[in-house]
Amino acid sequence: MRFTRLLACWLIVAACCTAGATRCLSESPSFDPLPSWQDGATKQSIVAFVERVTASDSPDFVQEAERIATFDNDGTLWTEQPLYFQLLFALDRVRTLAPEHPEWKQQEPFASLLRGDLKSALAGGERAVAEIIMATHAGTTTDEFAAIVTDWLATAKHPTTNRRYTEMVFQPMLELLEYLRENGFQTYVVSGGGIDFMRPWMEEVYGIPPEQVIGSRGKTAFEVRDGVPVLVRQPELEFVNDKAGKPVAIHQHIGRRPIAAFGNSDGDLQMLQWVTTGPSPGFAAYVHHTDGEREWAYDRDSSIGTLDQGLDEAEAKGWAVVDMARDWKVIYPAADN
Amino acid sequence: MRFTRLLACWLIVAACCTAGATRCLSESPSFDPLPSWQDGATKQSIVAFVERVTASDSPDFVQEAERIATFDNDGTLWTEQPLYFQLLFALDRVRTLAPEHPEWKQQEPFASLLRGDLKSALAGGERAVAEIIMATHAGTTTDEFAAIVTDWLATAKHPTTNRRYTEMVFQPMLELLEYLRENGFQTYVVSGGGIDFMRPWMEEVYGIPPEQVIGSRGKTAFEVRDGVPVLVRQPELEFVNDKAGKPVAIHQHIGRRPIAAFGNSDGDLQMLQWVTTGPSPGFAAYVHHTDGEREWAYDRDSSIGTLDQGLDEAEAKGWAVVDMARDWKVIYPAADN
Repeated sequence: MRFTRLLACWLIVAACCTAGATRCLSESPSFDPLPSWQDGATKQSIVAFVERVTASDSPDFVQEAERIATFDNDGTLWTEQPLYFQLLFALDRVRTLAPEHPEWKQQEPFASLLRGDLKSALAGGERAVAEIIMATHAGTTTDEFAAIVTDWLATAKHPTTNRRYTEMVFQPMLELLEYLRENGFQTYVVSGGGIDFMRPWMEEVYGIPPEQVIGSRGKTAFEVRDGVPVLVRQPELEFVNDKAGKPVAIHQHIGRRPIAAFGNSDGDLQMLQWVTTGPSPGFAAYVHHTDGEREWAYDRDSSIGTLDQGLDEAEAKGWAVVDMARDWKVIYPAADN
Repeated sequence: MRFTRLLACWLIVAACCTAGATRCLSESPSFDPLPSWQDGATKQSIVAFVERVTASDSPDFVQEAERIATFDNDGTLWTEQPLYFQLLFALDRVRTLAPEHPEWKQQEPFASLLRGDLKSALAGGERAVAEIIMATHAGTTTDEFAAIVTDWLATAKHPTTNRRYTEMVFQPMLELLEYLRENGFQTYVVSGGGIDFMRPWMEEVYGIPPEQVIGSRGKTAFEVRDGVPVLVRQPELEFVNDKAGKPVAIHQHIGRRPIAAFGNSDGDLQMLQWVTTGPSPGFAAYVHHTDGEREWAYDRDSSIGTLDQGLDEAEAKGWAVVDMARDWKVIYPAADN
């Protein structure tokens, strides 16, 4: 008995030693935690910030519990062109659900969509998008919806790259997430995307668990169906996690002010402002879509992911701007073959 | 250089060994992680559940990431008599703010309150309470409000016990929180209390960080004041985290179904139902206020913390019921003298 306990002790110690060794290895000068980032000012500014808040003798040292970094998702952690992927999901759902909704043949925006005329379907703007989202996202239980999202991501392919959507995440950002976590940060997603659309896959793809995913959300109702409690998704938008909504949601979910934030559009501006005006030193960065060859190039005049006011403010305030063409050696992870 | 790194390695290893030794100690048969709990069926059921979901060879083993336990606060982790402590805070705030509000002398429920007539002040029921909460909780920034709560808790004393409110937490529950965390659980508070009222002190008192505190909340608005972004608390209730709201908030904040939940009133019933009907084995327990000597004795007919339907359902479903008089050796932590 005593021997067993001693053995258990030693196994724990051995495991700790291995963990220690990994950390030592990761701290050796030859180890590069951000191998997909070009050496240059952007990468240096990230590393310098992390060292500044983690070195115990630094005047700007931040306790681990307060090391919180927030990331927008669409356009920051994965591609958002030619349409937000969640909207592509919704369009696929309309096609899947069409047989149960014969009335859609006469009803816009569904009628145009089912005829394959995406442009007319989306001509109604935000209202048309909201109708499509509600029709395809409500009515199910939360568990059912998670399964639908998971199934879709397992098979659907992007219209131009033919990659799975979860293969269109940005490899340099995956490395950044991991690098921050290795340095004691909690990494949160703070996205305009639907919270229930993001949670089913982000733990596997980004290493971000559901409780660290913050998004827009519809209303949810608790019901008892045949004696079994379920949460049912309602056709009513409850919160839009964009612009001034982002600091509000950060406060609501996390209750602490992050010390680092990454975005790519004017929708992230208030989050970046919030993060850089707290009592601790704050780091803000924009991912700038400059690479029309390997990804998409857009900023001030884009209808998706407009980066206009944010670009000016980044320059005025000295925030980091990641130039995708210049700063990233690769965009996407190597495809599984 | 190499020596420094080796030394760092060894320091990490030594720290791990110490952690390992503590764990070994805590696993030795003589170590009781719940010393304030009487040995009996309730304590045994808790320990049996934890062993069942944590033993790697158990058919009911649950991965650490899914080990989530939720706790109501008022009446479950600390006392809620003779009034919710947050309401006592609000009443004190009315007195503090009265000089800035001469109109309150003619305006109910404030007029009665300022005359010391609490009964008349609260005669307006929920509406009166809501008015008092809004008048005392809104208008400040989130940072200012956190400081006000912290200052109040540092000096205010309970009207009958003369203890500080944070000394009226339940010692057996503090041990339970720690015991669960030692076993890989994340412990969340899911309370009808205000989220911004709870977060400033729960990390220190319960070991529960702000991001694991879920509560009712007022609306918050992002504003830029004199060039500085702030979050301002609005006089509008946005979400009541009670009854069917609890599973909804759990989904919204955590995104996973907990496997254990602890409450003390009918307001916790839906949370307990939600936790016990998932795919994993779920543990539900009610704290039953049976100790009129050391705390307060109340259940079915109480105006605060009514436990009526919940008591019937606990019996019907075999949930644990903690009999405070019988199951707890002590109620509160030993006072700092």
